[in-house]
Amino acid sequence: MDKKKTLTVVKLGSHILSNPSELDHALHVFTKLPQPKILVHGGGSQATLLANQLGVETKMLDGRRITSEENLKVVTMVYAGLINTEITSSLQGKGCNAIGLSGADGNCIQSEKRTPQPVDFGYVGDINQVNAEQIFTFLEMGLIPVFCSITNSKSVGLLNTNGDSIAAEIAIAMTSYYKTKLFYCFEKNGVLKEIDDNSSVISKITCDIFNRLKEENVIYSGMLPKIDNCFYALKNQVNQVCIGQPLSMLSNGENCTTLTLE
Amino acid sequence: MDKKKTLTVVKLGSHILSNPSELDHALHVFTKLPQPKILVHGGGSQATLLANQLGVETKMLDGRRITSEENLKVVTMVYAGLINTEITSSLQGKGCNAIGLSGADGNCIQSEKRTPQPVDFGYVGDINQVNAEQIFTFLEMGLIPVFCSITNSKSVGLLNTNGDSIAAEIAIAMTSYYKTKLFYCFEKNGVLKEIDDNSSVISKITCDIFNRLKEENVIYSGMLPKIDNCFYALKNQVNQVCIGQPLSMLSNGENCTTLTLE
Repeated sequence: MDKKKTLTVVKLGSHILSNPSELDHALHVFTKLPQPKILVHGGGSQATLLANQLGVETKMLDGRRITSEENLKVVTMVYAGLINTEITSSLQGKGCNAIGLSGADGNCIQSEKRTPQPVDFGYVGDINQVNAEQIFTFLEMGLIPVFCSITNSKSVGLLNTNGDSIAAEIAIAMTSYYKTKLFYCFEKNGVLKEIDDNSSVISKITCDIFNRLKEENVIYSGMLPKIDNCFYALKNQVNQVCIGQPLSMLSNGENCTTLTLE
Repeated sequence: MDKKKTLTVVKLGSHILSNPSELDHALHVFTKLPQPKILVHGGGSQATLLANQLGVETKMLDGRRITSEENLKVVTMVYAGLINTEITSSLQGKGCNAIGLSGADGNCIQSEKRTPQPVDFGYVGDINQVNAEQIFTFLEMGLIPVFCSITNSKSVGLLNTNGDSIAAEIAIAMTSYYKTKLFYCFEKNGVLKEIDDNSSVISKITCDIFNRLKEENVIYSGMLPKIDNCFYALKNQVNQVCIGQPLSMLSNGENCTTLTLE
């Protein structure tokens, strides 16, 4: 009999983060999830806003931020500072013993700077290793880690890192200790057949269905790398991967899109 | 025989924080200190700089920041975001297993919003309780906590809090577990008889000497609350309190100012 506990890793989308009442609702739902659990967030739209206010140029390529030294300061202030600290405080206020973390904290997520070919993304990190033992220790102490999308290289320093990838890599690394569920939480009810029709949720996506939906251009743009992350997690022993709105994180795969390999 | 280990709590001053090479030097010295150890920092001058860039007004009274909602966002971005995360990353790069924390993380430092009479300081917190057990657990895991000057109230949320007070309260709270040393690290060699003569260090200050130096106006302005914090710590079982430049944190009370009750 497998006695492993189930760990839930929830990634909060950018739209929710930039709406105080939606964020509060999502955090409220998150508090209802049983422990152990982990929250992961970015904050791209707030970072762009602060960059604009400071006169720092924002350059995006395929939805990814080209991160100059100045942009790195901006995302560090917004992700690790404002959003991470406010979420941690809000969860504490809701009775949840949260601990805000970047990849540098306790050496939790080590990354390396992406090579500048074919595109120089600047201070952007690709994850080398998740310190599963340290994260496990925090979880077993009853703490609820809240990770922002900043990782660390001991030689280069802080690196801006895709939040969806962080969530997938953490979920994968923690399979040594737990059954793991990965939940990509955003403002829609799931992956939609018609982007403007929130009732057109595709309830199950297999690899085959994904390939067909890509060909048919039903799934495109920013949703493609997100779903690639989902299958990457499933292929690496993550037990359940879902995409949907906050309330469905409690529903064990109902009322959202569930990804499966077959 | 007292077998308690010795914990060193180092508070880094604002001048050092705003000079990258001085900060790097101070962190390098900090890595040489034996564990367990804790670092505490603020970042007032960088917060004022960011506030100016964002067109947010900075109001100070007796050296303390009057913290509007907008100012709270600025200090959260600067203290908890930029400075805390960069120090943590830098220490990791120097082989020191640091973990950046605000008072909200693991409920480490609980505070309450200061009453608005006689002066409304806004979102400024006075410390109610330091979660010594949680901090002790981190230290015994081999982690090196790096605290920024933000604390948390479960009802109000994040609160801007004086860094010198945080350092003193942590040192006091940790006396349950350790002998504690408190070191206020800044750019001068210690408390000076002549403010422009870095060789005029007053090597020992007792309560009586402090009162006399106050009367004589040798000690004034921002140094007064710092020394009040020192005596407050000594009166509450902290074993050693010193003020000096980075290198003297290794010298066990030499080449700096040592405070003693008698």
